[in-house]
Amino acid sequence: MMFTAEIKVMPLKELLDPQGKAVMGGLGNLGLKNIEDVRIGKHIILQIEATSEDDALSTAEEAANKLLANQVMEEYSIRIS
Amino acid sequence: MMFTAEIKVMPLKELLDPQGKAVMGGLGNLGLKNIEDVRIGKHIILQIEATSEDDALSTAEEAANKLLANQVMEEYSIRIS
Repeated sequence: MMFTAEIKVMPLKELLDPQGKAVMGGLGNLGLKNIEDVRIGKHIILQIEATSEDDALSTAEEAANKLLANQVMEEYSIRIS
Repeated sequence: MMFTAEIKVMPLKELLDPQGKAVMGGLGNLGLKNIEDVRIGKHIILQIEATSEDDALSTAEEAANKLLANQVMEEYSIRIS
């Protein structure tokens, strides 16, 4: 069966997010002054061929741990559907 | 009131996603051969000061249209909480 895994990878809350800060400045320059914080991460969608949802989740976790997220600086969450 | 807007920006389905294809190759080299497709986009979290959820949504839409998404190549969806 084919499963879709959506992986959200975000910079850790404890760390600065310079890309987000730059975008917040840009939005302010465009007149959107009521945006108080911006954080930017990655959204990754995997199509996984697996026998069960648990199997698909474990594949997605392995992909996130080994390649997609840098756990020194980022945290991730996975949703299977 | 403070609202959180989560904006998911993904490459259009009709277009190639070379970054996703490269990551799929990398996952295959790591032994994850049951991943059939990878698409990579951005996940952006805004903190918006607004009087209502509708007001926050319209600010997030303006931010997405003006700066965060390139609608020639990307589509976006917004979730307010």
